[in-house]
Amino acid sequence: MTAHVHAYAALNAGQPLKSFEYETGLLGPNDVRIRVSFCGLCRSDLDQLDNRLGAALYPLVAGHEIIGTVINVGSAVSHLQAGQRVGVGPIARACLNCSYCADGRDNLCQALEFTIGSGRRGGFANIVQVPAAYAFPIPESLPSENAAPLLCAGVTAYAPLRHHTTPSSHIGVIGIGGLGHLALQFAAARGSEVTAISTSVRKADAARRFGAHHFVVSSDPDQMRKARGSLDFILSTVDVDLNWTDYLDLLRPDGKICIVGATLGPINVPAGMLITGQYSFVGSAAGSRVVSAEMLEFAARHRIWAETEVMPITEINCAIERMRTGTAPFRLVLSHG
Amino acid sequence: MTAHVHAYAALNAGQPLKSFEYETGLLGPNDVRIRVSFCGLCRSDLDQLDNRLGAALYPLVAGHEIIGTVINVGSAVSHLQAGQRVGVGPIARACLNCSYCADGRDNLCQALEFTIGSGRRGGFANIVQVPAAYAFPIPESLPSENAAPLLCAGVTAYAPLRHHTTPSSHIGVIGIGGLGHLALQFAAARGSEVTAISTSVRKADAARRFGAHHFVVSSDPDQMRKARGSLDFILSTVDVDLNWTDYLDLLRPDGKICIVGATLGPINVPAGMLITGQYSFVGSAAGSRVVSAEMLEFAARHRIWAETEVMPITEINCAIERMRTGTAPFRLVLSHG
Repeated sequence: MTAHVHAYAALNAGQPLKSFEYETGLLGPNDVRIRVSFCGLCRSDLDQLDNRLGAALYPLVAGHEIIGTVINVGSAVSHLQAGQRVGVGPIARACLNCSYCADGRDNLCQALEFTIGSGRRGGFANIVQVPAAYAFPIPESLPSENAAPLLCAGVTAYAPLRHHTTPSSHIGVIGIGGLGHLALQFAAARGSEVTAISTSVRKADAARRFGAHHFVVSSDPDQMRKARGSLDFILSTVDVDLNWTDYLDLLRPDGKICIVGATLGPINVPAGMLITGQYSFVGSAAGSRVVSAEMLEFAARHRIWAETEVMPITEINCAIERMRTGTAPFRLVLSHG
Repeated sequence: MTAHVHAYAALNAGQPLKSFEYETGLLGPNDVRIRVSFCGLCRSDLDQLDNRLGAALYPLVAGHEIIGTVINVGSAVSHLQAGQRVGVGPIARACLNCSYCADGRDNLCQALEFTIGSGRRGGFANIVQVPAAYAFPIPESLPSENAAPLLCAGVTAYAPLRHHTTPSSHIGVIGIGGLGHLALQFAAARGSEVTAISTSVRKADAARRFGAHHFVVSSDPDQMRKARGSLDFILSTVDVDLNWTDYLDLLRPDGKICIVGATLGPINVPAGMLITGQYSFVGSAAGSRVVSAEMLEFAARHRIWAETEVMPITEINCAIERMRTGTAPFRLVLSHG
């Protein structure tokens, strides 16, 4: 049986979304069909809608921070059942057989399919269908609207902390927005010493509320100088090239800078400093299944979630405009309610 | 007691070295005095002699790939004795008390003193004096003239392999010169699959002799295309900016590029690729005491050493000129004999 879907789709790059209806395909044996309740709005949705990666197929239904309820499960699915609350993030499918998948690094599988793109349609629709392997049960204590952004922003912030830091690490987070405000919470809950770094002093109170022990205004040379050599790891959540010399100066020897912001262009890295300080520049790509599930369990235990503003899906074009103009709160979440 | 030293010193940046005599200081309780037999010529000696780092003090006696014989030991030195063959590399002193020193990462100590610079004088002299902590016993089976380059080039090649690779790694080495020809030998002896990458097809035979299983001419787009996605780790030993997109393409997901060449300027890193492939760009700074000693023991067990041409120290200006003009063999070594 197929199901009738109501969605909001981009018909061309950069155009307002239009109401758009279609039928799902038949439910495959390993798939689940989900009725979407909430869907977060992520910067990479805008990249897709605007075709900044150059591979978008229209009509395009974005949305990859999905919370919903399982309606049907495929004949081969035994670990999920109808009525269960689940979340879906940016990854919809991996081969589950290559060396990366077998090693718990399925986010690096070469056959990866994303929730939006590859002919798939995301959470700006009232129904989505994905392989059950990428529908994660949501722990009971997480409110749906606040949990939705965990599926992408949350795991993107959590995975590099898990991979590159320990509870004794001193961690800096550049950019206190959708990703950053989750990174601060995760880093603090993991027991680390946390420094928030922002161009805007107006973020200081919020940063402390999210667990930052220190706040550095990056445009203030005195504050940057005082913080020199204080950090083991810096997570950069902003999507612009920075004066990396200033940020490498914040690191202790052997320190790392991890970029997760959607910077597409080249960045300018001072190679001599990398060598003498034995620094690393690392990228991090969303999160695997095991890390996503672990993140959700950790978030539930520590009551970590996104600070959100909910808008009805009918106002999706207004939500997108607020995100473009930078007048959105930490995370906008669309309600299908 | 002081000792009389005969050396070759730069009196100004970029000038031919001149014969230069002086007295050592008194031997400190933790120091050793060494009669130098051989000293390798490293590209970073030229950087110092030419004052490319801007901090050189003249007269400057370079040379930091030293093999010699202990003449005297300080009153507090019990683990070395007169007559013993030792080697000295780029590091002369660390505090041995900070968290890095205590953790076996003394090469990252903030109080590090280098064998040349900081008022110290290196192996272009017939006698050197350094803290005994940085005079490494040389295993008997290593020939002195071939072992000298292990002290800098050797440990610089070995340390990142030890830190970032395993025997099952597929390793690429960019640049088959002084560092590169040692990196190939270490990588192969560690059991890894090894690919040599060079602009020059003329290096192919040598690369295979040093253990490379594959040879890629980097200026041949077909060869580079065929090698795509085949490597876990690339060690770049060249001191120029490269088209890093081409080299990131050689990596499997989660792969790393490590730079050890003395690139001083900024390099252009494609950030979007770092994120999607979860790649890392890492620097590596020489080697700690424990890694230096381990490298020497490993080199002795596997008969790994530098392919050298020995020139008498009296011809040092000719040796430097040959290095500048690229007509030197894998490693030039100066003999005090």
